[in-house]
Amino acid sequence: MRVLGIDPGLTRCGVGVVEGEVGRPLTLVDVGVIRTSSSLAVPERLVSIERGIEAWLEEHQPDAVAIERVFARSDVSTVMGTAQASGIAMVVAARRGLRVALHTPSEVKAAVSGSGRADKSQVGLMVTRILRLDAPPKPADAADALALAITQIWRGGAQARLDAALAAAGRNR
Amino acid sequence: MRVLGIDPGLTRCGVGVVEGEVGRPLTLVDVGVIRTSSSLAVPERLVSIERGIEAWLEEHQPDAVAIERVFARSDVSTVMGTAQASGIAMVVAARRGLRVALHTPSEVKAAVSGSGRADKSQVGLMVTRILRLDAPPKPADAADALALAITQIWRGGAQARLDAALAAAGRNR
Repeated sequence: MRVLGIDPGLTRCGVGVVEGEVGRPLTLVDVGVIRTSSSLAVPERLVSIERGIEAWLEEHQPDAVAIERVFARSDVSTVMGTAQASGIAMVVAARRGLRVALHTPSEVKAAVSGSGRADKSQVGLMVTRILRLDAPPKPADAADALALAITQIWRGGAQARLDAALAAAGRNR
Repeated sequence: MRVLGIDPGLTRCGVGVVEGEVGRPLTLVDVGVIRTSSSLAVPERLVSIERGIEAWLEEHQPDAVAIERVFARSDVSTVMGTAQASGIAMVVAARRGLRVALHTPSEVKAAVSGSGRADKSQVGLMVTRILRLDAPPKPADAADALALAITQIWRGGAQARLDAALAAAGRNR
């Protein structure tokens, strides 16, 4: 299973592709950041983000896309741009028929580090270990995108096994 | 000048097309609402909104698009969906090379009613008078979309005249 993780943002969208399945070592496929200039108007910045994500989907052909769930309680000055960027990410993935999963920051922290209250550097370190990298990916948005992809493989995989077990139990009833 | 006004929302996006210019009577071209079912996942709802706005642009070929500017201070339970829908509206317009203008609710109220603190029903009444309709357009989202389009024609037109005057003044210096 190959997942594109997206940490949405108007200035920087972290993007990271991870391949693997539950119970096996995961592999880093690619990681990066889609940047847009604050000198552009917001509509143009969103179009750049749309094109950037399209290019990542085209190049890596993931099976699913995992996007950070944005909350209204986040930092007010940037939350609107983040929400808009996350909407663009959802549309680009969904109109290709890809599965789109949203994970909260604490779900991601809990999945990769075992604690929903882990800090940025702990998440970066765990991503480094899980993907057997030499150093934490930078900037933090890139590491967060990989953490989102890892979360989706682990949680999505667990959900798929649960669904299969429930279906089998239903057949044996 | 023909403007598509969009009052963004995840459940209901008001859309209204107005034609005219500053100092002349304005004409209603079309008005409606793009609705998405709350039983669908957010990515699918955003794809429906994208398709709906595309269809309105395709049918009416406006010269510009005016979208309500969303603020973080709005109702927390719906503001994320509204921000995402507004992002989709911006992208759909901007990638066609259309001018995208954002107006705050008070700018719209001030433009159509003379007061930034007018209520919903006053805005509906003023839209009815300005466009010489028999009754206020319903629901309120549809009336708001028309008010956005009217605001853009009046403010955008004034801006264009100001730009022309400044350019002329520059030439005569």
